Amino acid sequence: MADRERPSVGDSLPELAVTPDRYLPHRYAGASGDFNPIHIDAEFAKAVGLPGNILHGLYSMALVARACAAVADGDPRALRRLRVQFRGMGVPEEEITVSGTVRAAEGDRLTVDVVAEQSGNQIIRNAEAELEL
Amino acid sequence: MADRERPSVGDSLPELAVTPDRYLPHRYAGASGDFNPIHIDAEFAKAVGLPGNILHGLYSMALVARACAAVADGDPRALRRLRVQFRGMGVPEEEITVSGTVRAAEGDRLTVDVVAEQSGNQIIRNAEAELEL
Repeated sequence: MADRERPSVGDSLPELAVTPDRYLPHRYAGASGDFNPIHIDAEFAKAVGLPGNILHGLYSMALVARACAAVADGDPRALRRLRVQFRGMGVPEEEITVSGTVRAAEGDRLTVDVVAEQSGNQIIRNAEAELEL
Repeated sequence: MADRERPSVGDSLPELAVTPDRYLPHRYAGASGDFNPIHIDAEFAKAVGLPGNILHGLYSMALVARACAAVADGDPRALRRLRVQFRGMGVPEEEITVSGTVRAAEGDRLTVDVVAEQSGNQIIRNAEAELEL
């Protein structure tokens, strides 16, 4: 952060935009060990009433974490606490945008409000991150 | 092998029968890093002319290795060499049987001919394993 101004209350996070590819959930299943078929089997997912196979919630949460860490030049250690509400289902092959606003700044500490949206749905909302810069 | 008679020429391996479940290829993709869609996306696989998503060949080969290691009470270190021909496509949710016959036995060394079949197709044939007991 030496070269960059520290964010102030009301500042926005740099917006993060990511389009998970068709097989992101399959790779996430492999990495996480969560092979729930709703994530990796579109046919099964439709049979249980979903629009198709859906993203793992923790993947979407990771995008929120990544957007927050951008404030510290991507250093994930800056993220001290993260609270989210999962409010919608993310799907592959549609862009997700994560945006946030600094709500409080005290010394090295920032509190940031964050939202992740996809196709007009807030898939994560009321997210709150604490960062130490 | 202390408690068991050493196999002789003409003896059969204990037959191995395994039915890979629907998501075996997905887990194998996660473990191997091979996320080729022909293995994890039935829709894609059909679009390119396959019957559905197919098993990874190395998974089928691993079943051959496992059947061979059974001769040494499952100790994979007994398997010194394995050569296979991939001759068919394996699919999930149908039983695979691996069978073999001891072709040569010299001291601690066995040479075994092995075949893996699924629904009447030889998915691996002309496989040859060398075992040291």
